[in-house]
Amino acid sequence: MKNDSALHTLILMPSGRRGQVPHGITVLEAARQLGVEIESICGGRQTCQKCRVRVENGRFDKAGIHSSEDHLSPRDEKEIKLLNKLGTPELRLSCNARILGDVLITVPEESRAHKQIIRKSAGERAIEVEPVVRQVYVEVAEARLGEHRGDWGRLQDALAEQWGLSGLSIDIHALRRLQPALRDGKQAVTVTLWQEQHVLDIRPGYQEGAFGLAVDVGSTTLAAYLCDLRTGELLASASAMNPQVSYGEDLMSRISFVTSRRDGLDVLHKAVIEALNRLAAETARQAGIRRDQIYEAVLVGNTTMTHILLGISPESLGGAPFALAHREAMDVKARDLGLRLHPAANVHILPSEAGHVGADNVAVLLAEQPHTRPEIILTVDVGTNAEIVLSGPGWMFSASSPTGPAFEGGQISAGMRAAPGAIERVRIDPQTGLARFRVIGEERWSNEWAVGADVPPERQPRHLASGICGSGIIEVVAELLLAGLLLPDGRFNPDSTSPALRWDARRRKADYLLAPAELSANGKPLLVTQEDIRNIQLAKAALYAGAKLLMLRAGVASVDRILLAGAFGSYIDPTHALVLGLIPDCSLERIHAVGNAAGDGARIALLNRSQRAAASQIARSVRYIETAVDPDFQEQFVLAMHLPHKRDPFPHLEGILPDLSAAPPRRRQTRRNKARGITQ
Amino acid sequence: MKNDSALHTLILMPSGRRGQVPHGITVLEAARQLGVEIESICGGRQTCQKCRVRVENGRFDKAGIHSSEDHLSPRDEKEIKLLNKLGTPELRLSCNARILGDVLITVPEESRAHKQIIRKSAGERAIEVEPVVRQVYVEVAEARLGEHRGDWGRLQDALAEQWGLSGLSIDIHALRRLQPALRDGKQAVTVTLWQEQHVLDIRPGYQEGAFGLAVDVGSTTLAAYLCDLRTGELLASASAMNPQVSYGEDLMSRISFVTSRRDGLDVLHKAVIEALNRLAAETARQAGIRRDQIYEAVLVGNTTMTHILLGISPESLGGAPFALAHREAMDVKARDLGLRLHPAANVHILPSEAGHVGADNVAVLLAEQPHTRPEIILTVDVGTNAEIVLSGPGWMFSASSPTGPAFEGGQISAGMRAAPGAIERVRIDPQTGLARFRVIGEERWSNEWAVGADVPPERQPRHLASGICGSGIIEVVAELLLAGLLLPDGRFNPDSTSPALRWDARRRKADYLLAPAELSANGKPLLVTQEDIRNIQLAKAALYAGAKLLMLRAGVASVDRILLAGAFGSYIDPTHALVLGLIPDCSLERIHAVGNAAGDGARIALLNRSQRAAASQIARSVRYIETAVDPDFQEQFVLAMHLPHKRDPFPHLEGILPDLSAAPPRRRQTRRNKARGITQ
Repeated sequence: MKNDSALHTLILMPSGRRGQVPHGITVLEAARQLGVEIESICGGRQTCQKCRVRVENGRFDKAGIHSSEDHLSPRDEKEIKLLNKLGTPELRLSCNARILGDVLITVPEESRAHKQIIRKSAGERAIEVEPVVRQVYVEVAEARLGEHRGDWGRLQDALAEQWGLSGLSIDIHALRRLQPALRDGKQAVTVTLWQEQHVLDIRPGYQEGAFGLAVDVGSTTLAAYLCDLRTGELLASASAMNPQVSYGEDLMSRISFVTSRRDGLDVLHKAVIEALNRLAAETARQAGIRRDQIYEAVLVGNTTMTHILLGISPESLGGAPFALAHREAMDVKARDLGLRLHPAANVHILPSEAGHVGADNVAVLLAEQPHTRPEIILTVDVGTNAEIVLSGPGWMFSASSPTGPAFEGGQISAGMRAAPGAIERVRIDPQTGLARFRVIGEERWSNEWAVGADVPPERQPRHLASGICGSGIIEVVAELLLAGLLLPDGRFNPDSTSPALRWDARRRKADYLLAPAELSANGKPLLVTQEDIRNIQLAKAALYAGAKLLMLRAGVASVDRILLAGAFGSYIDPTHALVLGLIPDCSLERIHAVGNAAGDGARIALLNRSQRAAASQIARSVRYIETAVDPDFQEQFVLAMHLPHKRDPFPHLEGILPDLSAAPPRRRQTRRNKARGITQ
Repeated sequence: MKNDSALHTLILMPSGRRGQVPHGITVLEAARQLGVEIESICGGRQTCQKCRVRVENGRFDKAGIHSSEDHLSPRDEKEIKLLNKLGTPELRLSCNARILGDVLITVPEESRAHKQIIRKSAGERAIEVEPVVRQVYVEVAEARLGEHRGDWGRLQDALAEQWGLSGLSIDIHALRRLQPALRDGKQAVTVTLWQEQHVLDIRPGYQEGAFGLAVDVGSTTLAAYLCDLRTGELLASASAMNPQVSYGEDLMSRISFVTSRRDGLDVLHKAVIEALNRLAAETARQAGIRRDQIYEAVLVGNTTMTHILLGISPESLGGAPFALAHREAMDVKARDLGLRLHPAANVHILPSEAGHVGADNVAVLLAEQPHTRPEIILTVDVGTNAEIVLSGPGWMFSASSPTGPAFEGGQISAGMRAAPGAIERVRIDPQTGLARFRVIGEERWSNEWAVGADVPPERQPRHLASGICGSGIIEVVAELLLAGLLLPDGRFNPDSTSPALRWDARRRKADYLLAPAELSANGKPLLVTQEDIRNIQLAKAALYAGAKLLMLRAGVASVDRILLAGAFGSYIDPTHALVLGLIPDCSLERIHAVGNAAGDGARIALLNRSQRAAASQIARSVRYIETAVDPDFQEQFVLAMHLPHKRDPFPHLEGILPDLSAAPPRRRQTRRNKARGITQ
């Protein structure tokens, strides 16, 4: 044992950091000096038990340093009791173990401050957990007669002394809880801080538990994720229909609703806020926490959604020049929006890019960081509007394309949302032109279904076909093309002899029989009409033209990788998407569904404060191309109406697309229809 | 006329500032360069018409500078029209008059930025009007397609360019009004700013009008003052009973109410907030403004009042160590307190000094600034508690004395508040011992009243005597002493032969007949009892002992000046106060009633932002002496129970106080009563 002024070697695993530290220092403090943050909420009072470490007893490092349990101060009674209670008597509390000799110590993952969460998609990314909300345990001096600081002054002094925090402000709700908490906690309290500068809450004694809610506020669906702000762990998730749907399916109809009724904005605002309140309650219930332990929420959505969320009329987004009320990120008290979380909780709305590309797209980019990869990447998030980002190393172009509701089942005669009974997969036999399909909620393909009065109920499919959802619509059109029933210009092939094509009397227009009456939930045959095909063409042309426009602006001829974000992206089949000409040509194995990347981005901003600055940087650095006024977009749109054939380079479809050179030549577009952006 | 690079001499009156300014510059800008701020809200757009100046045509200054109307650019049509409309065709708009030659200009008081308000009391003080709220008119660039700043970004850029304001944040309510205001104002808006950093409101076009409310929240009375935040003008004032009175007369009973009922705090909080809302509405109505034009409120009150205002339980103020939840000034959004002003309005609560000396006393000191005067000054604010400050140049000591409710009519058998019918003045004839008095609401003294069935109603007094208010109580006791009916120890003089003294059978206890039955509103004689005298003695002893304690601590033997703040201070007669021994000896002409100095201090903090820093400085620098634990206070209290006679030095009462050397010697105090701080 050396004397008090001696230095000892401390080696920390798994980081491998090493250095000389003074005799008698705690492992917690010594690790901090070597740049390794061990988690601690209680500030070294053997209360939070977050700082447990393992002594690598009897080990030698290369330089011959001998590590020993004896090189730390012995466990005292309180530590032994705590460690036994936790079932880890072999570990040490780093706040109570003092260094008396050379020692090699392992800091387990769960004891590290700034834990990491890993996001997997096309790539893999580690996000450090360092949220805006932090809890610290602090012991406050007792009030004495004749000393006049006030309890808030005493708390500030304690936070400055014990945690180096200064210049703090306090929410009125926290101030109201201060004195009861000090009394109940016998002068010890757990303080919840925002941005290390604003006190959100004060609870008596040691009480860990700070949670955050990330919500992707889609026009149709709200997806909420409840996270532990200390560990980064996803504790619960829930989704719900956006109740605004009943006031308008798409964004334009919501905007119309706001402008047409005096209370329109208020109705839509309250509807979504109440839905968010239900999601907060539901996720809190799932996770077994109280709703008032949610101290922070990050909300993303398209610009119309975020405007309405904040109680701002989206009217100006309904027409050129599509002026945003704000593009910047916003922090608002949850209570000012009517959100029932902790009364002092903050709501952070990520920044937007432009009038039609909102915080949800910024969140997608924050999650995927395509501009940090050495490839040309097309990131597509399909909804009622498609947000498209083309990126290369260090640059991004974005556009919004008005795909309309077709991909969500809107404007399709048998269209429906992705719900049980919706056709989501379609295969068409090129010989007969007849379809088999699969519906959501039933494993078997329709050609294996046993139906009819004589089939016992348990052998019948759980759901008959009720309609077609987005992915089914993509597939049926692509399959019709592959089977030769559809011509590249979108007309049903008049030369086809398939019995599934039901021509009108003069053989000028046909419907395609996708599901016969006996497989249909309402007992009527389920048809794909010529009009449906046209609407799909319009939608896919908008998406494709947007992508092509960005490629044109960026001066790239092809993309290396395509990321499909959102629920739609998760369910569509890349081959069918390519066949339909929804997206530019790309190697099939480089087309990835990345799930709800907007929700992931919201979670990242929830868990890491510096990622909020990164989001603002992204929002500012994306170059937005306004499709609505770009003549090239109109041109690309018209060209993209055609289903891909040899005219467009789709080398990755070689051998998949039928040879359509025999198809009749395209008709010339009329001038009138060209002006409308529509071909026949 | 000189060329464009020439310089001209500009002289500004009445300041006398002079300097060389470039050819062609506006008078507004030139004055700013010479350090004279001319008021302008519109930023030189001939809209606000605040910047009018007078050209001193044909005048020469000492150096021979010749001033001429011709040395300014001529009036254009718009300026002529505006000036005619204002009835001042001879003036110029300094934003439109460009300097083309030497010129002498007078800036009228009403055109000066940072106007001054004068406060008169014992001294005279000018307060510069420079509130936290400021309005600026700004023209914002139109949104263009393909440009993505958002309207908030564009507004920030305009504020930076046109007003040099940067780093702004915006209240959610202002953000909601931004786009409608830009639309209605055709891109021109008036922005209301807080602390030049936070946007509170945005209104279309040019719309001046920012108002503030200062309120002295007394335990008994609320006094509200509505001010114009541009001119500093007091537009309206109103007062109301604090509705908390119905839940407890004094502070201790309010605190008991809070601790004894689950909803106690909520009830008291809502009661005072609703009363404040009524006062805001009432003053706004009087001034002819809308309540949502009130952007700032400054509230002062004792610590129990400010705690309850903020929704903080005052429980800890009910017992030692009397810990404040906060001593610091607080800024809270009005909406978070339930105050209905502008939805983004801020409420500023001045800081407190200690557990029993609150923001109201800080406001008194801010208004009176006694520590900046070259005298020893005693500042006394009497209420249920008396706040006492003893100051000299650069130092202040404060104490709070538990005077109890006697001075407000409480614990006095015939006591009542200052309301019509309350006896406020009393004179006792030393020969007969009989009293005459005056009541509030009736000019004549009671000896001139004509009463009885035979007197026509118009000759009868408007009010008969209903009770005695604070000043009446002081006077009757002082007059009883002067008339020799009362002994210095507080007993009625058994040697008196006055018929107004009604002795009990054994002549051990007497009541004094102040008003006979025929002059009393309820037809019963109005009496002053021995018990009443005792309660007055206790109250005055507390006040006097507090003052003496501070003199002891400060090491001063006498005071040069006494300031009596508050309503009570305004109505009591200094001579009677001295006779009673309420306050230490002082030259009668140096005892001043300074009115509602707490309300004045609140107004000062409302109108001048730097005075808020001064208030914090005052709150921190006052040395608070806790009477509750000071043995010297107990000692002084016991001594002060006696009504002043020759034992205490009261040279200024020489010739007024009767020679009481003949009075029987004081009885010795019993030990038990001494411990209770009470003499017999």
